[in-house]
Amino acid sequence: MKYPAALQNLIDKLSGLPSVGPKTAERYAFYLLRQSPDKLKSFGAAVSELQDNITVCRECLSISENNPCAICSNKERRTDVLCIVENIQDLTAIEATKQYDGRYFILGGLINTINGIGPEDLNVNKLLNRIKNGGVKEIIIALNFTLEGETTALYLTKILRDHLKITRLAKGLPAGSDLEYADELTLANALKYRNEISK
Amino acid sequence: MKYPAALQNLIDKLSGLPSVGPKTAERYAFYLLRQSPDKLKSFGAAVSELQDNITVCRECLSISENNPCAICSNKERRTDVLCIVENIQDLTAIEATKQYDGRYFILGGLINTINGIGPEDLNVNKLLNRIKNGGVKEIIIALNFTLEGETTALYLTKILRDHLKITRLAKGLPAGSDLEYADELTLANALKYRNEISK
Repeated sequence: MKYPAALQNLIDKLSGLPSVGPKTAERYAFYLLRQSPDKLKSFGAAVSELQDNITVCRECLSISENNPCAICSNKERRTDVLCIVENIQDLTAIEATKQYDGRYFILGGLINTINGIGPEDLNVNKLLNRIKNGGVKEIIIALNFTLEGETTALYLTKILRDHLKITRLAKGLPAGSDLEYADELTLANALKYRNEISK
Repeated sequence: MKYPAALQNLIDKLSGLPSVGPKTAERYAFYLLRQSPDKLKSFGAAVSELQDNITVCRECLSISENNPCAICSNKERRTDVLCIVENIQDLTAIEATKQYDGRYFILGGLINTINGIGPEDLNVNKLLNRIKNGGVKEIIIALNFTLEGETTALYLTKILRDHLKITRLAKGLPAGSDLEYADELTLANALKYRNEISK
């Protein structure tokens, strides 16, 4: 026996979610099956209507309910600093620190030669236009410290360094870390980029 | 900045799925956000309409599109054997073996004294009615070999053994297993319930 069609249909759809296999999809589907009809309808509507009120901000290419988004339309934020992030999750992570009051730009990916993703697949042209139009003086490259992130950072530095000040997020030891268990590269970076303690 | 309301709403709902935390819910939501509008609508509909065409079979208490379900209304299946399972997932697992041609009964749970689940919380009364009505001669107890499963099996055996033949799934070594790595209890059971090789 197979499951009833409606259940099997939902299991198939849930199996499409990232790193969800048929067994996990089954667990999710059975959980949903036990919910009240009202709860289920509102869950379904949340999925169906997800894209209806979400748009892409024309300035930073982030997703937002408004265009331009809340950050780009906030007059109190600095316009001379532009923080380049890979995606909206990274943007949100930086916003959560409450330490940055400039603008953002979503690159939409990282250069990955193995998977054939080049600069032309990223929002590089839009970035150049964005820089041309605004009064940007400093670019903060806030990309992952992975092979792809480093490659992309290198590429961006090459095409932008003649026109702008370019900075990157600091490399070093994470908060609360134990020197004994830090990997060599992290420790080497922490040494190399050591800061002078102000008196 | 928080995420747009529609996105945050979906993330909150996805966080309610079993063993899904906010980070996983975010990954799912961003995956859904990238889907085509058509795909998204049909995903949403699959959730909303999940319960619309699913009913509970009055005979075995399994879920089904029809009442009674395909198994209970199948005249070619034996009516004298009733296999008691905890839930529909276990039923499906047994059906997948294609070795059983009797009927099923869904118990709806297992006795769990720690969590305060007693026989009155399971479909025990419905099971007794089901046995009274039908020509059941043998009960196969197909419950997990866990503390809860064993307790429930013991309870069912007690209340049914005077009227019916009662059997349980065999204990022993799983297919493809290596004796060296089998736990002691499994090996002890495999010894205790050893079978004579027919000549």
